[in-house]
Formats: sequence, structure tokens, C-alpha cells
Amino acid sequence: MPFSTRIPVRFADCDPAGLVYYPVLFHYCHAAMEEFFAARCGTSYARLMAEERIGFPTVNARAEFFVPLVYGDEAEVEVFVSRVGRSSATFEYTIRRAADGVACARATLVQAAMNLDERRAVPVPDKYREAFARSAE
Amino acid sequence: MPFSTRIPVRFADCDPAGLVYYPVLFHYCHAAMEEFFAARCGTSYARLMAEERIGFPTVNARAEFFVPLVYGDEAEVEVFVSRVGRSSATFEYTIRRAADGVACARATLVQAAMNLDERRAVPVPDKYREAFARSAE
Amino acid sequence: MPFSTRIPVRFADCDPAGLVYYPVLFHYCHAAMEEFFAARCGTSYARLMAEERIGFPTVNARAEFFVPLVYGDEAEVEVFVSRVGRSSATFEYTIRRAADGVACARATLVQAAMNLDERRAVPVPDKYREAFARSAE
Amino acid sequence: MPFSTRIPVRFADCDPAGLVYYPVLFHYCHAAMEEFFAARCGTSYARLMAEERIGFPTVNARAEFFVPLVYGDEAEVEVFVSRVGRSSATFEYTIRRAADGVACARATLVQAAMNLDERRAVPVPDKYREAFARSAE
Repeated sequence: MPFSTRIPVRFADCDPAGLVYYPVLFHYCHAAMEEFFAARCGTSYARLMAEERIGFPTVNARAEFFVPLVYGDEAEVEVFVSRVGRSSATFEYTIRRAADGVACARATLVQAAMNLDERRAVPVPDKYREAFARSAE
Repeated sequence: MPFSTRIPVRFADCDPAGLVYYPVLFHYCHAAMEEFFAARCGTSYARLMAEERIGFPTVNARAEFFVPLVYGDEAEVEVFVSRVGRSSATFEYTIRRAADGVACARATLVQAAMNLDERRAVPVPDKYREAFARSAE
Repeated sequence: MPFSTRIPVRFADCDPAGLVYYPVLFHYCHAAMEEFFAARCGTSYARLMAEERIGFPTVNARAEFFVPLVYGDEAEVEVFVSRVGRSSATFEYTIRRAADGVACARATLVQAAMNLDERRAVPVPDKYREAFARSAE
Repeated sequence: MPFSTRIPVRFADCDPAGLVYYPVLFHYCHAAMEEFFAARCGTSYARLMAEERIGFPTVNARAEFFVPLVYGDEAEVEVFVSRVGRSSATFEYTIRRAADGVACARATLVQAAMNLDERRAVPVPDKYREAFARSAE
């Protein structure tokens, strides 16, 4: 089952045109991934980094932005993992305006499992592989 | 001819893993687009917004991240417009590590011309259309 | 009674030294002020700006940082208004580590009531004046 | 002699009210401090952290904001060190609008010298102590 979390649009997230600055939407995706780890993977992203010395840097990003979010909106970010490779995973995000469910953006982000000390690719640990797969069921 | 600008990697741009947080790389692209307007389009992006009430919000993004930038690096961002449609333009970015020219990321961003007061699509004004096209020659 | 809200420390909030970048702590204060408006003032900060065309830009800031927040922490931000002048208000913030209540930072921020269209000082509207005063009781 | 550097106000630095979000002004101060290290201290802040394992986290901040910076402005940030203690230094910043020199903000930031591995205070190394002192002459 996909994971979903709500993120308030902050004053600082918006640009002089009154819209959420689009790199901030990628930040919302990352925040949702952090929440996903805590809720579904049995560890926080912080502990994953500190204790297992593993991170998931982004190697590929694709996104479409349909409807702008504006100051005063709340974002609802849904995330699931559509594919788990040997040392990477593909996260699918939908960002909706929480008030009415209108889809504002979709993003597909490929994250590589990386050892943080040696900065090289490592296999996705089995426990995360399973948690990732369950999000797509 | 493509436009190129240098952007120092700031302390705040980097995450606890020591790498530039990937949404910040999109921010670098936007900063390069702002510089591109000032250098090649005969107006600043700020004046474009204030006086012509036109903005170019992002409607589609694709990016690949090859090599991480780290704190202490300087980014060199090259930008040109590969396609100009009726009311949108496709900007192509290459982000290199300035010290040795290593390509760190590539991004393709589609920007829609928007009237900021009515928040609706408008045709790309001719003067920008020409400046955009020249960047690809 | 002071208002209190929790803010998760995000990956992006932390710098390469692993600590929350100190300007982000001011951002947490602003986020808490936004929540304070929604919870205590009968309007959101977004509606205040959009409908009443009033904002509260910061004119003076003082802060002490005792203990760093790190990635993995959650911040608890307490806010109350210690003084309401004719056209300004003084907000007092305490940022604690939510897990154990350790005080990490204190900030005093003076916000001026400003008409957003004319960018000039205006009196603090009475309804906010009262809500502000109640936070200190 | 004080050190001075120019920082363009980016689209993303501005809020929906059209003004530079005030925590971003502290970010400008940090960026100026980074440039100050590179220009005056014989090392970059990045190398200071990586090679000497020393950082200068902020322990106290005071600032006044006189005139807002808006999108389209360029900031000129002047910095000097007014006091060097055993394990801290007091940096004085003036942020001006580059076009006309109007003072927009002043900030006084106390930075503590910290060993990044043990996260404890250390004496300010002599070479930086001297470079700091020269900035006030």
C-alpha cells in the first residue's frame, strides 16, 4: 500500500509569483521519503545513515507539474516504490492539494543505495527491499 | 551559443552526507536561467516579472545525476534552449565541477510562459523566442 | 498560554557538519508563527496576507544557540508574544529537542505590521492584538 | 580592512510578499563569511572543515532589518571581526543594496570555534586570530 503524508506549504516555500518554487516540490518528495522510512522500514532515514552508513542519493529524476501549489495550501504526498533493482530503487510520488485532492505534480525518482563512507554503490539491504516492495502492493 | 555561469557550492547547499542536496541542483539551474535572461534576453527575470507580468514556471523536469558535487566545489552551469513552442520553451542544463570540467548532472526543464496576474499560459514573446533560439546555435 | 508546535528536522535542514544550519532555526520560528496564527488568531497567515493585505516582516532579531539540533531530532517550538506595540509585536521563541526537552535555542523577534500593497507600517489590528496578548498569560 | 562581497538576490530567496525572507539574510551573512575565509584566511571554509576539522557554528545572533531587499536587487555584504576571544569570534555584517548603497540590515554573529569530531569548543587557531584582527583595522 502506498504511504501518504501531509506537508504544509510554508511561507518560505513560495516565490515572488506566489507559487511553490518547483525545487521545493522535490524537497517535499524527499521529506515524504524520510517519513516513509520511519513508518514502513523500521528505521528512520537518520538512523539508516548514522548506524548503517547507507544513504539513497538521487540518480535520476522525472517530474510533471500540473497545477501550482500556492501559499495557504497543504500538500498531500503519496509515495510507493515501483521497482527495486540490485542497488537502486524507483520511488513514485504524487503530490496533491490536500483540500480537494487535485493532483498537482507527479515525480519518479531513482535512488541508488550508497555506502556513505566509501561513496560507492551497495546492494539494497533485504529488509528495505521487502519494505519497498510492500509499498507497491 | 550556450550560456554559462559559475555558482559556488555553499555550506547550506550540502546535506549531512556532505553532498549537494539534489533539489539544490534544480535551484542552480534556475539561478542559471535567471543569469541567462540578464545576459541574453535584454532584461532581468525580475523585470520580466515586474514589468511584463510574465513568468516561466516549470511544467516538466528530467534530470540525471552522475557525480555528486561536494562542499568546496564550484558548479559551472551551461544552459541553452533546445526548443521553443508556442507558449513554452525547453531549457537544457549541464552542471559541471568547475575545477576539472567533470559533468555532474544534466537536466531538461520545460518552462511555460505564464501571465502572472491571470495565471494562464501566454505565447512566448517574440524577443525572447529569438534570444532563446540563438542560444542553441 | 504559549503556543507550541513540533517540527521534524529534515535532511535538508542539516549542513555538512551534521548540525541544523542556524538560519534554518529562524525558519522554524517563522513556521511556528504561521501555526500560531492558524491556531490562535482565527485566520491563517496566508489568509491574513491575501485578504487583509497585512504581513509581519521581521525588523529585529536576537537569538542564542545553546545546543545544536542534529538530523534525526524533532524540534519543539514554543512561542508567545511578550509585547504588543502600536504597529509591532515581539515574539519570544524557545526551541527544544522534543525527545528530552533540552533547550537548544531562544529567539526574540520583533515583527512590524505592514500593509503589503503600500509597504508601510500599519497599526496591529485589534483582534490580533488580543490574541497576541493572550499568548503571554 | 573589512571584506566585502556581492550576492545576487535569487528568485527563490524571496517570499510571496516579494521581499527577501529574513532567514535568507542570515544565509547571505554565512556566504559572506565563507568568502571571507577564502579571501583573507588562506584557506576555504570547506578545507578548514575537511582538513583541520574545525567549524565556527553560531552561538549568538543579533540583527536589525531596516529596508527590505526585493527580487531584482543585488546585496553587498561587508564583514569584519570586531572581537576575537579564546574560542569565539564576533563577526559584524552590513548588508547594503548594491545599486545605491542603502543599508538594509546589520547583524552581529558570535561564532564559536568547534572541533567537528568531538563537537567541543577549541581555541581559535592563531593564524585565523590574526586574519580576523586585520579585518577590523
